Amino acid sequence: MILDIISKKANKYELTKEELETIFMGYLKGEVKDYQMSAFLMAICINDMSDSEIFALTDIFIRSGDVLDLSFIDAIKVDKHSTGGVGDKTTLIIAPLVASLNVPVIKMSGRGLGYTGGTIDKLESIPGFTVDLTEEEIKKQAKEIGLVITSQTKDLAPLDKKVYALRDVTATTNSIPLIASSIMSKKIAGGADKIVIDIKVGNGALIKTKEEAERLSSLLIKIGTYYQKEVRTVISDMNRPLGHNIGNKLEVMEALDVLKGNTKGNLLDLSLTLASKMVSLGKGISEDKAMVEVKENLQNGKALDKFLEFVKYQHGNIDELEINAKVYNIKANKNGTLKDINALNIAKLSEYLGAGRKSKDEKIDYNAGIVIKKEIGDEIKEGDILASLYTNIDNPTFNLERIFEIS
Amino acid sequence: MILDIISKKANKYELTKEELETIFMGYLKGEVKDYQMSAFLMAICINDMSDSEIFALTDIFIRSGDVLDLSFIDAIKVDKHSTGGVGDKTTLIIAPLVASLNVPVIKMSGRGLGYTGGTIDKLESIPGFTVDLTEEEIKKQAKEIGLVITSQTKDLAPLDKKVYALRDVTATTNSIPLIASSIMSKKIAGGADKIVIDIKVGNGALIKTKEEAERLSSLLIKIGTYYQKEVRTVISDMNRPLGHNIGNKLEVMEALDVLKGNTKGNLLDLSLTLASKMVSLGKGISEDKAMVEVKENLQNGKALDKFLEFVKYQHGNIDELEINAKVYNIKANKNGTLKDINALNIAKLSEYLGAGRKSKDEKIDYNAGIVIKKEIGDEIKEGDILASLYTNIDNPTFNLERIFEIS
Repeated sequence: MILDIISKKANKYELTKEELETIFMGYLKGEVKDYQMSAFLMAICINDMSDSEIFALTDIFIRSGDVLDLSFIDAIKVDKHSTGGVGDKTTLIIAPLVASLNVPVIKMSGRGLGYTGGTIDKLESIPGFTVDLTEEEIKKQAKEIGLVITSQTKDLAPLDKKVYALRDVTATTNSIPLIASSIMSKKIAGGADKIVIDIKVGNGALIKTKEEAERLSSLLIKIGTYYQKEVRTVISDMNRPLGHNIGNKLEVMEALDVLKGNTKGNLLDLSLTLASKMVSLGKGISEDKAMVEVKENLQNGKALDKFLEFVKYQHGNIDELEINAKVYNIKANKNGTLKDINALNIAKLSEYLGAGRKSKDEKIDYNAGIVIKKEIGDEIKEGDILASLYTNIDNPTFNLERIFEIS
Repeated sequence: MILDIISKKANKYELTKEELETIFMGYLKGEVKDYQMSAFLMAICINDMSDSEIFALTDIFIRSGDVLDLSFIDAIKVDKHSTGGVGDKTTLIIAPLVASLNVPVIKMSGRGLGYTGGTIDKLESIPGFTVDLTEEEIKKQAKEIGLVITSQTKDLAPLDKKVYALRDVTATTNSIPLIASSIMSKKIAGGADKIVIDIKVGNGALIKTKEEAERLSSLLIKIGTYYQKEVRTVISDMNRPLGHNIGNKLEVMEALDVLKGNTKGNLLDLSLTLASKMVSLGKGISEDKAMVEVKENLQNGKALDKFLEFVKYQHGNIDELEINAKVYNIKANKNGTLKDINALNIAKLSEYLGAGRKSKDEKIDYNAGIVIKKEIGDEIKEGDILASLYTNIDNPTFNLERIFEIS
């Protein structure tokens, strides 16, 4: 029966919802084995899925676990998701920015697996910050300050989690239908009414080409329509890191800088775009109008105040935020112009320095990370510091040419 | 690295021999996991393999274990292989037939996994028959009577065995390149100089269409050429069972009947074809001329004598061959003409009766099986016996319509 379903997909036939349910729920229960699911996932990667298969799979993922009920908040709940990039700390910026405009943000986030930490890891790098809130605490905080970021209290889309972990070790991550149903099931189970999704494209991202990003965008919107959840997408570049800081505590520091109005560049631009889409959805106003409000609350300090209020509410002590690590510098080995900064290799280096974890049980070094000191296009002199490495590893090794291209 | 190789095949690129060696030998060593290999096998099933990939894989399979040296026999060693069918006892007929014409046959066979037993299982159903010969015994017997069938003394293509077991439970059996490299690696490791391969096509076989059978035939011949081993193929029908008897001891009895010259039909015809190809290859004569010799030795009793000599040499007592089982009959439930006998469902029934094993550790009931009593085209009256079931199960159940089509 299971083998028949796998064969059907391998032979390019469309599967029914019942067949998808049989194999995927069988996998959750352990009746379908890892080696059978991975063969099936590979068949999906190569032979694709129809829209109705994708809707069915999203539904199976959602119903595999709990669905959050956020109806205790009497406003439109807008969530934001990123397909994952290097140095992406936009959630830390836009969550308080959007909340400061009275659009509530209640996010259940995960820890990171891979090269860098997740939002929860970044917040935990703030001394005292609590991520394990009870349901009562979440409700109270949501009502009082309109902004909560907490680790998951409920079991949201556990089947997606199990499938995702298998995809990660079987070269089956790169399937647009699987990515789309994974994202949408998590967001819908998370209780969002409307969703903004940041699709990263480039060497530092899961999605490598513009075409794939556009297919994903169109699928996410379609699934949203199916569930009557409005979805808007942004396709953003991930060939170079977002901002200058990579690593948990370093990223909190950079987010603070943005909220203080101290920076410009790709991180600020993307944060403004995403925040204005969220505010537009939450308030039912145009994105242009939302952009004006967003910029205003960044300039007048209200977004920063909301961030500080939020950190304090979750027991974080932002004044104690300092990096405890040894510093090593990457210096230019020749004169020239900085042509490129490779996001993927920066990510790998940051993991090596201690900023990421490969398995659930590994500990992250919150202090570890990288600060990039030069912009693309800068004139470089031999001996210039290109980046500073923060780590508790002695004499870390790195390959300059794989990260910085100078010509 | 492993994931890169899997991705490359998933994205339809040709793999180098080094890449194939990395992933397949990694699998043999346990470094590559079942769930990774099954994803990779599925990518092969869907995206196919080039000829040079197939040659490389065959080579990797061969070198994963021992290679038999049959040079102690001063003659061309011709082997025969079947892709597997229901009621296929041709080896029991053609091995003595060919050997009786002074073409030596030295076969290392496996036990059966699946619906019916393998050649070794069938021989073991003869009381006293020994299948575990030492190398010394094999050499002595080969020189004295020119015919040996024994279980494997050496570890031939163990990687193929491991991959095959995984394919069986992941819906990845149906790949012509994988089937071709699996067959040829086993035959070449088994020491054959020339090989006749019986490709079964139909509902009772792995290969369902004529086109696939022709692709397989052409690949087997190509791999043979690559190794300087002449290969000839026969494409034979497996929509209905071969002969009338299915089940280990019952098949030995039917083989004896053929050797005694008592039968006609598809089993005799295929046996003559395969045997004449083997004799043609072994003696370097035309297939027509070989056919004359083959028919002669069947008629004059020399093939039967060789079989009896062989059974006695391996300590079997053919006179004690009798079925110890309860008999149940399948009777026609209406008048009409027998249109079809479904090979696959006959096979499933015979396994249920006790004639096959699903896992290595299961025991086969040598007495269990089915004797088909009617031919396709026969006029049937309600109440006629269509088949007799031999089993030690009480009151076995069966679905007449799934096996016999009467109209």
